[in-house]
Formats: sequence, C-alpha cells, structure tokens
Amino acid sequence: MTKSIDFYFDIISPYAYIAHKKIEKINKDNRILFNYKPMLLGGLHNLANITAPAFNDFKMKNMKNDCDLVSKKNSIQFRWNEKFPINSLYIMRGYLFVNHDKKKEYLNKFFDAYWKDNKDLSNQDNINEILKTLNIDPNLFLEGIKDDEIKKLLKQMTTEAFNLEIFGAPTFIYNNKLFWGQDRLEYAIDEFLSLK
Amino acid sequence: MTKSIDFYFDIISPYAYIAHKKIEKINKDNRILFNYKPMLLGGLHNLANITAPAFNDFKMKNMKNDCDLVSKKNSIQFRWNEKFPINSLYIMRGYLFVNHDKKKEYLNKFFDAYWKDNKDLSNQDNINEILKTLNIDPNLFLEGIKDDEIKKLLKQMTTEAFNLEIFGAPTFIYNNKLFWGQDRLEYAIDEFLSLK
Repeated sequence: MTKSIDFYFDIISPYAYIAHKKIEKINKDNRILFNYKPMLLGGLHNLANITAPAFNDFKMKNMKNDCDLVSKKNSIQFRWNEKFPINSLYIMRGYLFVNHDKKKEYLNKFFDAYWKDNKDLSNQDNINEILKTLNIDPNLFLEGIKDDEIKKLLKQMTTEAFNLEIFGAPTFIYNNKLFWGQDRLEYAIDEFLSLK
Repeated sequence: MTKSIDFYFDIISPYAYIAHKKIEKINKDNRILFNYKPMLLGGLHNLANITAPAFNDFKMKNMKNDCDLVSKKNSIQFRWNEKFPINSLYIMRGYLFVNHDKKKEYLNKFFDAYWKDNKDLSNQDNINEILKTLNIDPNLFLEGIKDDEIKKLLKQMTTEAFNLEIFGAPTFIYNNKLFWGQDRLEYAIDEFLSLK
C-alpha cells in the first residue's frame, strides 16, 4: 500500500491547476498525503496516441468554458491563458531542476502566472521575472534545464507515467487505482481515507 | 429562454446511460424538465473530427473502470457490455420510429439491455426480443428504420447537435450553455433551478 496519493501533473494543464487549487483547499490540515509527480503532457499524449483537446476546436472551446465554470463553482481564481497551448518542456524540466525546498513555491508561481495572471510563459523574460522572485539565477536555470540528467529525468518520469497507463492530466493514483481528471480528485481521496 | 434542459444522447454511450439513471433518481418529482434529444454519436464524432475513447486502448480501459466507479458511487446498476462498441444506427433510428408514448419505455429497455444486462444488441434476435416486450412488431420496426424519413431525421438531429457545437455524449444544453459529460448534469440542473 502506498502512503500517499500520487498526483501526476503538467503546468500546461488547466485541469491540473484546478486540481492543485482544490487540493490546497481540501487539504489545509494535511491529513491527506499527496505526492507530486511531474511529467510532460505533450510527450505522454504522443506515447498514448492521443490528440489533446487543445487541438480540436470543439473540445478546446468546451474546455475553456468548463474551466471557467468549474473554477467558479470551486471559488478558484482562474483566467484562460491567451497563449494556450505553449510548450511546457522548459518549465517542467525547471521543476525537476530546482531544489526540493523550492519546488512547491516554483509550482505555485508558475501555475498562478499561467492560469491566473495570463502570463505568456513562452517568453523567457516572463519566466526570468518569476525566477527572480524565487531567488533562482536565470542563467543557472537555463544551464540546468539543458543538463542531460534533467532531460533524461523528465523523459523517464513521463515514460513511467505511461507505463502505469496514465494518458492525461491530472491523474491520481492510489492503491493501484487510476483516477483521471480533476472531477475524480474526490474519488481518490475517498479511496485514501477508506484505506488509510 | 428554453423551458427544459436538452439532453443529447445515444444509447451506445455508457455515460449517457449513467446520466439517464441519475436524471431518474434526481428528478423523481419531475420538477426539472428534460427534453431527450437522440443523435448518432459515431456520426457526430466524425463531424467533429474526434476519435472516440472506445478506439484508444488507454481511454477505453479508463472508461470501463470509471463507469464502474461512477455507477457504484451513484448506486446505479451497471455492467460493461462485452460487445462494446457496436453500431447504434438501427437502435437510434428505432427510437425515432416508435410512437411518442413508447419512446421512454423503448429507451429504458434498450439502455438496460445494453448497459445493465450485457445483451449483444448487434444481434437482431436480441433486438426483436426487446421489441416484443414493447408490443412492437419486429417486421414493422425493420421497415420503419429503413424508411427515408427516419434516416433523414436522425442525420438531421445529429447535424443540428453538431451545429450547436456538441461533440460528445451526454451533452446538456440549457440557457444556451453547453455542459458535456455526466459529471456536468448537476451544473446544468443548477443553471435550470437558478433561472426557472
């Protein structure tokens, strides 16, 4: 039995952002353990032979409306990013590169910048601005995310997710059960609380 | 303002079955009006350029588990059909063919046969058996579903759904707002009750 709910995410996913905010609300007392597992959603979709909703006009429009609606229902600040989608490769490699004690703040700042403040995170200046607030040297960061070990690690984590039959984000895994989508966070928590 | 929630469905969709059962539970007192709108999901997917989850191994496996889970949480009897997917063309044309006062019973019996009792509805004998319990003559039925008017009507209703930017089932529309998926039934009902 694993001791925590694995939470597979990519910062590019609006539903991963919503799930993250829901987790923060639901889990203020930290009675549920979440293990954050980064992956590259674009790479995962390729492995699973899935066309992301972002690349279908009808799904895209629905996703936009649905994210607005779900956010409102859950009192989550949310604003659709005008530059969606972008390649999240560097941002996700960055999550792996930064020190363990900065990962949570890194995640929060990048999630908020993209899904609350409509920042264009394909623009390096905007990324650098966030890095500065995290006291991370942008040059060291740029070097870090081009490091072979970091590149390999993100690939490996994405492949690991795929090998668990994960095909989208967010995905929760607990007790070997897979729950896909922010709508299933509560189901994963039920499973956790029933077996804890 | 429309007076009812439009409910777009195809009997082939397990989530449409679940939504239908949820509606029956939630709406025992009939305070919410639902307008059942048949369409051909396969045709709709083609129009919207969408690969159905049934044709991706990972999505298929997840859908199966998820339907089991959602049914259990909602106390709905459900059993994954071993012959999924089949072509629902004749069954959906049949829904249009049968008399108005038999549509509800027709829907219930075909939904239950496919998503509760694991009947192979690609087999005409199994269809005929259900028709008999509805006092519908199988020969008249077979003629009816090959009638040009019925063929045209199902195509037309599917195109109408597509023109409303519907791309999947179940879909609910109320107050010009589109809600996709059984997970959004409660949102559609909230909208209905807030504006009624």
